Amino acid sequence: MKLLEDRILKDGELLEGDILMVDSFLNHQVDINLLEEMSKDIYEHFEGEEITKVVTVEASGIAIGTMVAKVFNVPLIFAKKSIAQNLDENCNSVMIKSYTHKREYSVSISKKLISPEDKVLIIDDFLAEGNAIYGLIDLVNASGAEVVGIGVIVEKGFQSGGRNLRADGYNLYSLSIIEKFEDGNVIFR
Amino acid sequence: MKLLEDRILKDGELLEGDILMVDSFLNHQVDINLLEEMSKDIYEHFEGEEITKVVTVEASGIAIGTMVAKVFNVPLIFAKKSIAQNLDENCNSVMIKSYTHKREYSVSISKKLISPEDKVLIIDDFLAEGNAIYGLIDLVNASGAEVVGIGVIVEKGFQSGGRNLRADGYNLYSLSIIEKFEDGNVIFR
Repeated sequence: MKLLEDRILKDGELLEGDILMVDSFLNHQVDINLLEEMSKDIYEHFEGEEITKVVTVEASGIAIGTMVAKVFNVPLIFAKKSIAQNLDENCNSVMIKSYTHKREYSVSISKKLISPEDKVLIIDDFLAEGNAIYGLIDLVNASGAEVVGIGVIVEKGFQSGGRNLRADGYNLYSLSIIEKFEDGNVIFR
Repeated sequence: MKLLEDRILKDGELLEGDILMVDSFLNHQVDINLLEEMSKDIYEHFEGEEITKVVTVEASGIAIGTMVAKVFNVPLIFAKKSIAQNLDENCNSVMIKSYTHKREYSVSISKKLISPEDKVLIIDDFLAEGNAIYGLIDLVNASGAEVVGIGVIVEKGFQSGGRNLRADGYNLYSLSIIEKFEDGNVIFR
């Protein structure tokens, strides 16, 4: 999506360890017009599919998840994070490794919120190794529901998440795919 | 707001310790149509004011903050939480006590995101003792900007936050105010 790529080139900051900071327009301050355009783009990609729920994970997935849920006019569910394993029998929980924060955390969704009839679109801001997305897939599957598609804002194409998800047959739509970082610059695929 | 009060009576769950669970439509699953109606209601209340940014705190403020920022067509900023005091010199940080979770956490906003010219509308889901809101006010003031108003979804009228904010002269708008819990029922003001 050119609007997004241009914005990343203009306002993204590249930190040590290949961390792309998009704090000024995506995941600390959110440019609402960009958010709407991205959500419409995701809608157009998945328009033919039956989708009954949007699922994301707190915290930085919630803004894009909210706007995507609005354009599809379906409920949003955000999986809840905690540091300890969640032992609540009313929830499905998985452990997820964070690439950015180098730690594990538990992610949970209340069992009552997803039913086997649901067709789920998973949304997140970043896709690197795919740990968060695979965790959300496990949570959706634990409810017996179907993952219809996955939409992310930024895919790091040089990490394995996107490749693995496509190899597993998922309909993954990335609004931008970063091929590599070179001399402090972002190169898109 | 009658639509919200009716929904709380229908789908809210009252747990021990006067914790009102609104997981099925507000802060785990989000009913997008309700979210839109609430955001329009907040817009109508603050319509005459100049507002340049919406500020909330992760995680459960982000959904309503996103939709309110959309109706005002201004950027959303969500303050970031961490367990430890944030010592990043590029951020303003405050410590906030959580009523629900009985612990303290640090909440931060990057200094570059709010300028002294900004007119800020603070948005959050719940208002009890007002610790989170007062923390956000401190963060806005630390940037030299002005808090134009405060909008919350549920005010617990029997706790001191709302009373104190109004006594301090803030334009506080609560979509619902709970007067008390009685025999396991919610009584609105």
